[in-house]
Parts: sequence; structure tokens; C-alpha cells
Amino acid sequence: MAERTFDQAMPTHGGRTGRLLLVPNTLDLGCPDPATGQAPDLQQVIPLGVIREAARIGHWIAENAKTTRAFLKRVDQVAPLSQPLQALSIEELPRPAKGGQPAKGPRDAKSEASGQAAVLAKLLAPARTGHDVGLISEAGLPGVADPGAAVVQAAHQAGIPVVPLSGPSSLVLALAGSGLHGQSFAFVGYLPTDAAQRAQRIRELELLSRKAHQTQLVIETPYRNPALWQALLQHLQPQTLLNVSCGLTLSQGFTLTDTVAHWQQRELALPTDVPAVFAWLSA
Amino acid sequence: MAERTFDQAMPTHGGRTGRLLLVPNTLDLGCPDPATGQAPDLQQVIPLGVIREAARIGHWIAENAKTTRAFLKRVDQVAPLSQPLQALSIEELPRPAKGGQPAKGPRDAKSEASGQAAVLAKLLAPARTGHDVGLISEAGLPGVADPGAAVVQAAHQAGIPVVPLSGPSSLVLALAGSGLHGQSFAFVGYLPTDAAQRAQRIRELELLSRKAHQTQLVIETPYRNPALWQALLQHLQPQTLLNVSCGLTLSQGFTLTDTVAHWQQRELALPTDVPAVFAWLSA
Repeated sequence: MAERTFDQAMPTHGGRTGRLLLVPNTLDLGCPDPATGQAPDLQQVIPLGVIREAARIGHWIAENAKTTRAFLKRVDQVAPLSQPLQALSIEELPRPAKGGQPAKGPRDAKSEASGQAAVLAKLLAPARTGHDVGLISEAGLPGVADPGAAVVQAAHQAGIPVVPLSGPSSLVLALAGSGLHGQSFAFVGYLPTDAAQRAQRIRELELLSRKAHQTQLVIETPYRNPALWQALLQHLQPQTLLNVSCGLTLSQGFTLTDTVAHWQQRELALPTDVPAVFAWLSA
Repeated sequence: MAERTFDQAMPTHGGRTGRLLLVPNTLDLGCPDPATGQAPDLQQVIPLGVIREAARIGHWIAENAKTTRAFLKRVDQVAPLSQPLQALSIEELPRPAKGGQPAKGPRDAKSEASGQAAVLAKLLAPARTGHDVGLISEAGLPGVADPGAAVVQAAHQAGIPVVPLSGPSSLVLALAGSGLHGQSFAFVGYLPTDAAQRAQRIRELELLSRKAHQTQLVIETPYRNPALWQALLQHLQPQTLLNVSCGLTLSQGFTLTDTVAHWQQRELALPTDVPAVFAWLSA
């Protein structure tokens, strides 16, 4: 391999290619803080440098256009937007077909893929003419337990520089807050909703945690928080350390860790309208 | 289970117990930005609310006292410290015995554990008398690919509220930047340095990635970045998507994803003095 310096490692674009900026959103989903009745100050969780970058972006790719406009109004209160909100281009990410099936009749997988590639290329078109494009999800970092990864992959394929910006991630805050093993951990998304399948998956993930000494993290749709909690208390081993982190970065947020045996003696009613992360480490 | 509201879920401490605040550090290790010759502005990566919290903390538990003082000097430039730096209490985390072995002769594991518990209790003592305690590592969030988890666990056991604060995490930035699967991913720490063992572990983790459709993330000591990169190109399958994220949040940082087959045709000399995260997803 030829010797190259660090500065040369980045592909060059003749100064004409824009970047894909991965912009973190808050974890509050724009809801007012119950303690104050106001939307929390963006500067509690998003760095000023990131807010200023966001204020400069004219082209957005968003999980949800409406919540992106709400986010940009909060940005504008800290760093005035470079253009009026109405003048910004905000394109929504294509929604995946329900259940992974094509919506109508049989379709050729290859033409489906090339159709998606065309959509992604169109979303990234402003970067080809030198404009930075912002990618944003409804909460946290795009592409982490959230849509957006396909756009990032398309940017890499097109040689568009990708720049992830620092912000809150509920998963990593939960992991740090849990005090569980942070040298090896896995996030496995959602568990099955069917009770028998869920029980089996919990046992499987506990075995994996024990064998690999690996913290396991999962999330759940908020209204199912209590059901998942009960399932974890029922199917994990008594000595397993179990954490629940709920509404982190919000004023009413908390993170708690105890053994399953102790949890079975404690009372804890989880809210059904606040996102939670569940983590465990088998002894 | 008795009905309890969300606000009641947090244990109460009669207003007398301090909190353990998990304070994020930058990812620049205090090094000056090569582009400007200055230490990067803390506000590029740390939210103002977090900087203000850090400025109020009088008791610190640190991976490294010296780098914590350097961090606090940067905090002071944004939000004046509530006390002079010299007046702050900064205690270092106990270092784990080398190789997991006791330093001298045979020792009873139980007394070792109770010794550690006593050390942790002493570190957390200020919280028991109502003072917030800050936990900080040399980069990123404490307890995530970094020491500190034992202190957090001890805080949970003692009923001390744990509050993780939003900041940069190289792992989650690398995952977002990679465009690889973010609905299921695992961080597995370091790979073995022995070439044969490393090759075997790479193949094992590729199989796991394929079976579970799970992105795998690893880190390496910076001077071994090029050796790990070559090993990944040699032992992963040609169609596997491989990402390297180097110095994220720094001005010279980058994140790049391509297939192993394409990487074998590209030239990329990784720096040997900047931390990198490596991630792959098997096709």
C-alpha cells in the first residue's frame, strides 16, 4: 500500500461536492417539559456548533417533515436560520413497504431496488451541486435505531462526504447510565410482541449475554413498556442485572439498575407515553 | 403491582442525596486542531447545558485527573467554574490489576471485591451528603468502551440517582456515519493482537453479522489501525460492507464505507495517532 498522509485519506471533490450532515435531534419529540410547560431548551442536549451547522443547511432529508420544521424553529431561536423556514427544501425519507412486502401485486426485486436507488439519488442531488444536505430523524441520531441508513450508504457510494454530528443517543445514554458492561454490548431492536415468542427471545438473549459477557439492549413502543417489563421480570434469571432508562435527558427521566430478584420485590410502574430502553447483563 | 405515576417512579432521597452525573468529554483528547493550532471549542461537541452542569460540580471521579483538569479549564472558558480549579476534589478511578490478576501473591477474591466496594463507596461519599458528583473519562461517555461502569453500578446500589448527560460517543457516531444496519448492532471491544487469533475472531464475527444481520463494531489502539485494517481486508468476505471512522468530530475526521472487494482496490493509509472505529455488515 502506498504511503498517504492523514489529510489525503479523504477523497477530494474539487470543492464542488456538498456533504451529508447527520444532524442529531433531541429526545423530547418536541413535547413541552411538564415542569415548565415549555419545550426544553435545545442547548440542553445539542451543542451550539451543531445548532449553527443546522441553521446553515438549506436542503433536508427528514424522517418527518413536520417535526423537522418544529426542530428548525427551535434552532432559529438559538442561531437564526440562513433562509426563511418556508424557503428550505425538506424531503421525507421513502417509507418502507409494510411488513417488508411490496404494496401492490408481485414486483421484481431488482426493479424495486433500482427504484429505491433512484429515489435516494434524487434526495442527494443537492450535494452533487455543492450544497450541504442535512439528514434528521424524529429523535436522536439518524440511522441509529431509526431510518436513514440507506441514504448514508447511498452517499458513501456516490463519494459524498458523510459528517455525523454530536448529539444525544438514547441507547448510549442508557448504556452509560446502566452501569452495565460497556466494553461489549449489543442493541437488538424490538422483541416479538407474541408472549411465547418474546419469552423465548428473552431467554436466548440472556444466554448470549452470559456466554459473551455482553450487555443486551432493546427498545419497545412506549405503550408496551409495562408489558415488556413484566416479561423481563418473569423470564430473566434472578441474578441478572436489569436496567430501565426512561425519558433520558428529559426533566422527568430516570435510569435504574437492580437484580431481577430485587426488581421482583420493588414496585415500578413505567410510563406508557415516554420512550424507554431496557438493558441487562447476565451474571 | 400497585399503580404509581411516572413522577413517583424515581426513588426519593428527602432532598439530601446528590446525584452521579455522567459527564461526556470531547473526542479530541485535548489535542490542538491541526487546522487552527488551537484546542477545538468545547461547544462544537458538548451542549451548553452540560457545560454549565460541569461548571457547578465540586466533586469529580475521573479516569485521569490531569486530563480532567484540562477539560475543566475549557469548561471555565464557556461557563465559569463555581470554585477555583485547585479547590475541586478530583479522585481517580482505581486501576484494574494488569491482566485481571492480583498484583501480589494469592488473594481472596471476596476480600478483593469488598476492597473495591469500599473504594467505590468512598468515591461516592460526597453524594451521600448532598453533593453532585461528576464521573468523567478521557473521551466520550464514561462507561462506554471506557472505565467507570463499576462506579455507576455502585451508585445504583446505594440509591444515588444517576444522570447521563448528552455528548459525543465515537461508537454511535461511527455507526450513524457508516450507513450500516442501525436496528441491530454490537460493539465487541478490541480484537486479539495475535494474527491467527485475530483472523479467527474476524471470521467468527462476520458469521455472526450474517446470521443475525447485525453490524459489528470494534476499536483498536491507534498505532495498530493499519494492521487491523489489513487483517479486515484479508479475512472478511468480498461483498461485506466495511466502514472505518477515524477522528470523528475532529476537523480532519472522516467516515468511509465500501465493500471489502472495493477496499482491496483502493488506497487508504490510516493514521496511527488518531482513534478509529471499524464496522462491518456481512451481505
